[in-house]
Amino acid sequence: MYSSSSPSSSSSLSVQSEIPLRVYYADTDAAGVVYYANYLRFCEIGRTEWLRMRSLERPVLAHTNGLVFVVRSVNASYLSPARLDDLLTIRTCMSRLGGASITFKQAVLRQAQLLFEADIVLACVDMARMKSVPLPSLLRQTLLNLNA
Amino acid sequence: MYSSSSPSSSSSLSVQSEIPLRVYYADTDAAGVVYYANYLRFCEIGRTEWLRMRSLERPVLAHTNGLVFVVRSVNASYLSPARLDDLLTIRTCMSRLGGASITFKQAVLRQAQLLFEADIVLACVDMARMKSVPLPSLLRQTLLNLNA
Amino acid sequence: MYSSSSPSSSSSLSVQSEIPLRVYYADTDAAGVVYYANYLRFCEIGRTEWLRMRSLERPVLAHTNGLVFVVRSVNASYLSPARLDDLLTIRTCMSRLGGASITFKQAVLRQAQLLFEADIVLACVDMARMKSVPLPSLLRQTLLNLNA
Amino acid sequence: MYSSSSPSSSSSLSVQSEIPLRVYYADTDAAGVVYYANYLRFCEIGRTEWLRMRSLERPVLAHTNGLVFVVRSVNASYLSPARLDDLLTIRTCMSRLGGASITFKQAVLRQAQLLFEADIVLACVDMARMKSVPLPSLLRQTLLNLNA
Repeated sequence: MYSSSSPSSSSSLSVQSEIPLRVYYADTDAAGVVYYANYLRFCEIGRTEWLRMRSLERPVLAHTNGLVFVVRSVNASYLSPARLDDLLTIRTCMSRLGGASITFKQAVLRQAQLLFEADIVLACVDMARMKSVPLPSLLRQTLLNLNA
Repeated sequence: MYSSSSPSSSSSLSVQSEIPLRVYYADTDAAGVVYYANYLRFCEIGRTEWLRMRSLERPVLAHTNGLVFVVRSVNASYLSPARLDDLLTIRTCMSRLGGASITFKQAVLRQAQLLFEADIVLACVDMARMKSVPLPSLLRQTLLNLNA
Repeated sequence: MYSSSSPSSSSSLSVQSEIPLRVYYADTDAAGVVYYANYLRFCEIGRTEWLRMRSLERPVLAHTNGLVFVVRSVNASYLSPARLDDLLTIRTCMSRLGGASITFKQAVLRQAQLLFEADIVLACVDMARMKSVPLPSLLRQTLLNLNA
Repeated sequence: MYSSSSPSSSSSLSVQSEIPLRVYYADTDAAGVVYYANYLRFCEIGRTEWLRMRSLERPVLAHTNGLVFVVRSVNASYLSPARLDDLLTIRTCMSRLGGASITFKQAVLRQAQLLFEADIVLACVDMARMKSVPLPSLLRQTLLNLNA
């Protein structure tokens, strides 16, 4: 359904994906714009598709490694509102690969106009112990290779 | 936080509860009214508090009996829209106690005005087998006694 | 983004559309399945895309005729739960064209398995007066021609 | 329905409110915890009740001044997950009063345990022109007096 964009030229921000997303009534509020919490919902979609495009699907991570990614922090700026029926683009790239976390830089655009951007840090959590753990080396290497 | 209303005089519709609920931006959409799916969210709150008032809390049902209630059908009418900042009343009563299901009659009001009503059927499901099962006799008796 | 399926053979149920829809965390609840109110959100997406495929886009209806469609009733059956990461199909067709309302028959499927179905009645409402009005004859004719 | 807590001793963080909030299925996701975007929904409730307790209700602000508050940024930390049926506390205080913005410090707790905290900046926007404007002096004075 979604196609990955070509990698950006910057090696640090690396491989990014862009997916289209239509705004429906469910996403909006009585101010006539997209409700502010729903941008985080859009970002979850962006991250999930970013992983899927790299064959890093959630069930595989969960079943193979007993791991799940949990949001630790969100640092978001709301620049301009999205509206009903807008066709948006959700842009996602990995901006930092830590020992036990991944930072995504995500943005919501309407054509060329930037509406929203956020840095979102996810921790790698062992589901059985519900504790933060280092990324498995194979996963880490796979993610590092995306930038090569 | 919530107080149960006095039982209705009708023995068939029996013990009902009413809880207050404020409308926030999150509940509304760009048409300036409460988004239609959110009335089902309000109804879930109403049913949960109806059970809590009768000491039939979810964790107890789940841990003691391995049971969970699952929505099987919704038959809903939208009469008039609720709006931002409205203080609503969610009215809930058990309208039918079947062998393996409970039917709730629920309504959303703004003061005396009826905005929304629904008949919602929940099936009793064994979590381990994910199959519909008869209500345990003790639970059934407890629910029947509410009408006595 | 979405492509319409071929019309069904039944003339009464007429032209139907099918759109794909992926389940994300935002759609699910702690029971591990799609939260029951979110099927109505999926149905809104289905109806909006059904209209868009027929060039009956919301802004056009609103600007040309001052009309909006409002949900009057929902009659829904939950047959089997959808889960995280499922790739669903939202099937939408117009099942009845009344003088002042349209009835949609909608369904959510996972491959061939029917998970949810609903009859949803929408009334045609004049936005200025917030009153139910007959469908404009041009719109009515356009909708009738879909079945021809 | 809600009662304001006593003002904190710190004059800078000043008058804070605390409201109770129950977690329902609608708030949770398939990971068994509250979905990350819903904490922003909880914060909207906290801010709205904070304003209501100070007789700064939205309709008054909108009708008297043609003003609306719009979220400009969110800086949030997720410390520990909230779960189904938890009874949470939403704590809200004004941490900074700018010329054209208000910063709220908000937190979600389960009893004494801090689960989530965020700094959320809202800009004062003229609805007619959709432009950021200085807070009206009367409103500004009212907010300053809260700290006196």
